[in-house]
Amino acid sequence: RVRELAGDLHESDLGDLIETLEHDDRPKLIELLGKDFDFAALTEIDETVRVQLLEELPPETVAKGMRGLDSDDAVYILEDLDEVDRAKILDQIPALERVALKRSLDYPEDSAGRRMQTEFVAAPQFWTVGHLIDYVADTDELPETFYTIFVVDPAYKLLGSVPLDRLLRARRSKLLSDILEENPRTIRATEDQEDAARTFERYNLVSAAVVDDGGRLVGVLMVDDILDVIEEEADEDLRALGGVTGDEEISDPVFYTARSRIPWLLVNLVTAFFSASVIGLFEGTIEQMVALAVLMPIVASMGGNAGTQTMTVAVRALATHDIGGHNARRLIRRETLVGLFNGVICAVVVACIAGLWFQNAQLGAIIACAMVMNLVCAGLFGILIPLGLERMKFDPAVSSGVFLTTVTDTVGFFSFLGLATWWFGLGGPH
Amino acid sequence: RVRELAGDLHESDLGDLIETLEHDDRPKLIELLGKDFDFAALTEIDETVRVQLLEELPPETVAKGMRGLDSDDAVYILEDLDEVDRAKILDQIPALERVALKRSLDYPEDSAGRRMQTEFVAAPQFWTVGHLIDYVADTDELPETFYTIFVVDPAYKLLGSVPLDRLLRARRSKLLSDILEENPRTIRATEDQEDAARTFERYNLVSAAVVDDGGRLVGVLMVDDILDVIEEEADEDLRALGGVTGDEEISDPVFYTARSRIPWLLVNLVTAFFSASVIGLFEGTIEQMVALAVLMPIVASMGGNAGTQTMTVAVRALATHDIGGHNARRLIRRETLVGLFNGVICAVVVACIAGLWFQNAQLGAIIACAMVMNLVCAGLFGILIPLGLERMKFDPAVSSGVFLTTVTDTVGFFSFLGLATWWFGLGGPH
Ligand SMILES: [Mg+2]
Ligand SMILES: [Mg+2]
Ligand SMILES: [Mg+2]
Ligand SMILES: [Mg+2]
Ligand SMILES: [Mg+2]
Ligand SMILES: [Mg+2]
Ligand SMILES: [Mg+2]
Ligand SMILES: [Mg+2]
Ligand SMILES: [Mg+2]
Ligand SMILES: [Mg+2]
Ligand SMILES: [Mg+2]
Ligand SMILES: [Mg+2]
Ligand SMILES: [Mg+2]
Repeated sequence: RVRELAGDLHESDLGDLIETLEHDDRPKLIELLGKDFDFAALTEIDETVRVQLLEELPPETVAKGMRGLDSDDAVYILEDLDEVDRAKILDQIPALERVALKRSLDYPEDSAGRRMQTEFVAAPQFWTVGHLIDYVADTDELPETFYTIFVVDPAYKLLGSVPLDRLLRARRSKLLSDILEENPRTIRATEDQEDAARTFERYNLVSAAVVDDGGRLVGVLMVDDILDVIEEEADEDLRALGGVTGDEEISDPVFYTARSRIPWLLVNLVTAFFSASVIGLFEGTIEQMVALAVLMPIVASMGGNAGTQTMTVAVRALATHDIGGHNARRLIRRETLVGLFNGVICAVVVACIAGLWFQNAQLGAIIACAMVMNLVCAGLFGILIPLGLERMKFDPAVSSGVFLTTVTDTVGFFSFLGLATWWFGLGGPH
Repeated sequence: RVRELAGDLHESDLGDLIETLEHDDRPKLIELLGKDFDFAALTEIDETVRVQLLEELPPETVAKGMRGLDSDDAVYILEDLDEVDRAKILDQIPALERVALKRSLDYPEDSAGRRMQTEFVAAPQFWTVGHLIDYVADTDELPETFYTIFVVDPAYKLLGSVPLDRLLRARRSKLLSDILEENPRTIRATEDQEDAARTFERYNLVSAAVVDDGGRLVGVLMVDDILDVIEEEADEDLRALGGVTGDEEISDPVFYTARSRIPWLLVNLVTAFFSASVIGLFEGTIEQMVALAVLMPIVASMGGNAGTQTMTVAVRALATHDIGGHNARRLIRRETLVGLFNGVICAVVVACIAGLWFQNAQLGAIIACAMVMNLVCAGLFGILIPLGLERMKFDPAVSSGVFLTTVTDTVGFFSFLGLATWWFGLGGPH
């Protein structure tokens, strides 16, 4: 009964089913389904769940289940396992497939070589359309889905590609060399998956040949896997900006989650003490005018908000390669001016409210000045920090936030308390 | 010369070229290229640039250029124009195409109906494979690219689909009704583009039939456009979380950018005053113990950081439909416990540093308690706020941040200053 119900599910739905099951029931379901279990479902579940599950299944079962998969799915499942588990499974896989999998696994993590499938349809250029169509109809071991035929020379060097719709439109007597698209967009196997995804997006591809350094065809990237890459990379950046840098997943338990989040909190704790020490410089001032302590977080937090707006735009534009030498200067200028502009508006509002609240127009003027200064700095550093980190080969999404809030807090506290100390001639720095 | 150079460019590269040109040179380039200009390039440029450019070109030129486009690209270009400009262009378009465009434009913004193309290949079920192949080879007006043949009844009700690779594998004598995939995944035309994108991603589609409420085929969604949707939606959420809610673009000038960002800043200014008023309650306390003013931003900002981590994960999981009735409770529990756990760790660190800095162990103990309280609240509200907003049909990415920082600032200041007031028996609330 279970077999009937689960056997018909799409791999994604089957994956969801596995995730909702209790820990111990997962391997049971797979054993129960036997060869009706589609191992592709494993590519659709969270990494933590997948790794645990694979450790509990006998390597023979896994190896047998993986034989039906496209190589990219098999690699996706294998890459997260530790060396030992991986070797155990690979040993059970027939030599030919094992070599292909090992070669993919040799490419760096998150490279096109890891995401490509090694099953594709290739034909020599002297074949006719009719010959190719008959070949496709007669051959059983073709990949499950394909959208393009690749035309190669005897050394497997890529000569061109023929999308299936173009093939269908051609007369049977035409030679492939007459209808092929020359110089199709290709992806190098060592290229980062993110760059490959940009190419797909930019040139509206559905599949692309993956070539090695010698221009030989080694695999093909399919758009459905690129869709996952785009989601994954957008996800990574979004989380990084929110201070979630580990690869925690929604199914992770409390302890894992807490452990993956604490480093970021501790880093921020250090910078928080740094900004606090700036306040510490003005203890004498605050003692004489407590209103300053009440208002100072406003200046700091508005700087943080404005800076985060700029930083978000900058990080995103870096990810999509929309910032480059041609517009970096213009953007730095723009963001600084936006800071100035919005700084003035916020300053006016804050001056009125603060002035009325504490019945002190001078205090209003001082918080206004501090606000403008901080929002200008926020705009300037909001873009300079991501640009600088990117240039130094750090991921701007991960670390821009800490640096930025350090700047906006420090400038916010220092400008406001400093101006007040100077203007009112208060206690001054200890 | 320019014509030769620019005529060969891919639409994306041509789009980039237009974007880098000065404002006045853009229409000139298009006029210069004449019919060598591929209007598809307009779909690859920023909205602000596109709208300005289209307003400057004569409607006849635009209408003529758009005749070569797929309907989805034409709609993409038309939808951002105002009624009058749009009508002027539509008037110049032949009736048959105009009706199709108007029908797409009648669907709600960001719906599948807006993103679909109305050019597709459909065939009756009694055709043989051979007949269909000959039809494709002989017919000129087929869409430029297609990956699937849709099989329909005389009323255009969708009966099934035949991916091209399946077509190629079948014998010429087979009937389409024998090889079609029954009940393919379809998209309703009124469905949100984001939901359509999830379907593509989940079921690894390259194209999908778009049907009206009666199940009749009205268009087809292609994966390359879905790729853009996914980018766009991820972008929207990422920006929203960073407080960038308008649809500003990297090419926008200072004034537009500033204007689109100021509302968010003003909203935050209001909440900043609210948290400041909480500090205001404790002016007497701070006067007697200035160290509290120095340390209070630490408690507030750590709450903000921890809460943002939780909120980011929650917002993202809501966007990908990974949170639902089945795990909401577990996640609320998990996030609260993570807050408790990391709260305790941060509390220990902060207590040691603060205690040593001000040579006051009791102060250390108090900031530790406040830190734990605030991080527990941060975890709890970091997930409850997005869940609540989603349930009330607000976009959690846009507004979770303000509510959350209001909570973490308020709880941070109140717990720390309140505990200190009570423990040290200081000035107390005014
Ligand atoms: Mg992985
Ligand atoms: Mg990456
Ligand atoms: Mg595209
Ligand atoms: Mg695949
Ligand atoms: Mg997959
Ligand atoms: Mg990245
Ligand atoms: Mg673009
Ligand atoms: Mg648009
Ligand atoms: Mg939307
Ligand atoms: Mg998928
Ligand atoms: Mg399209
Ligand atoms: Mg397009
Ligand atoms: Mg959205």
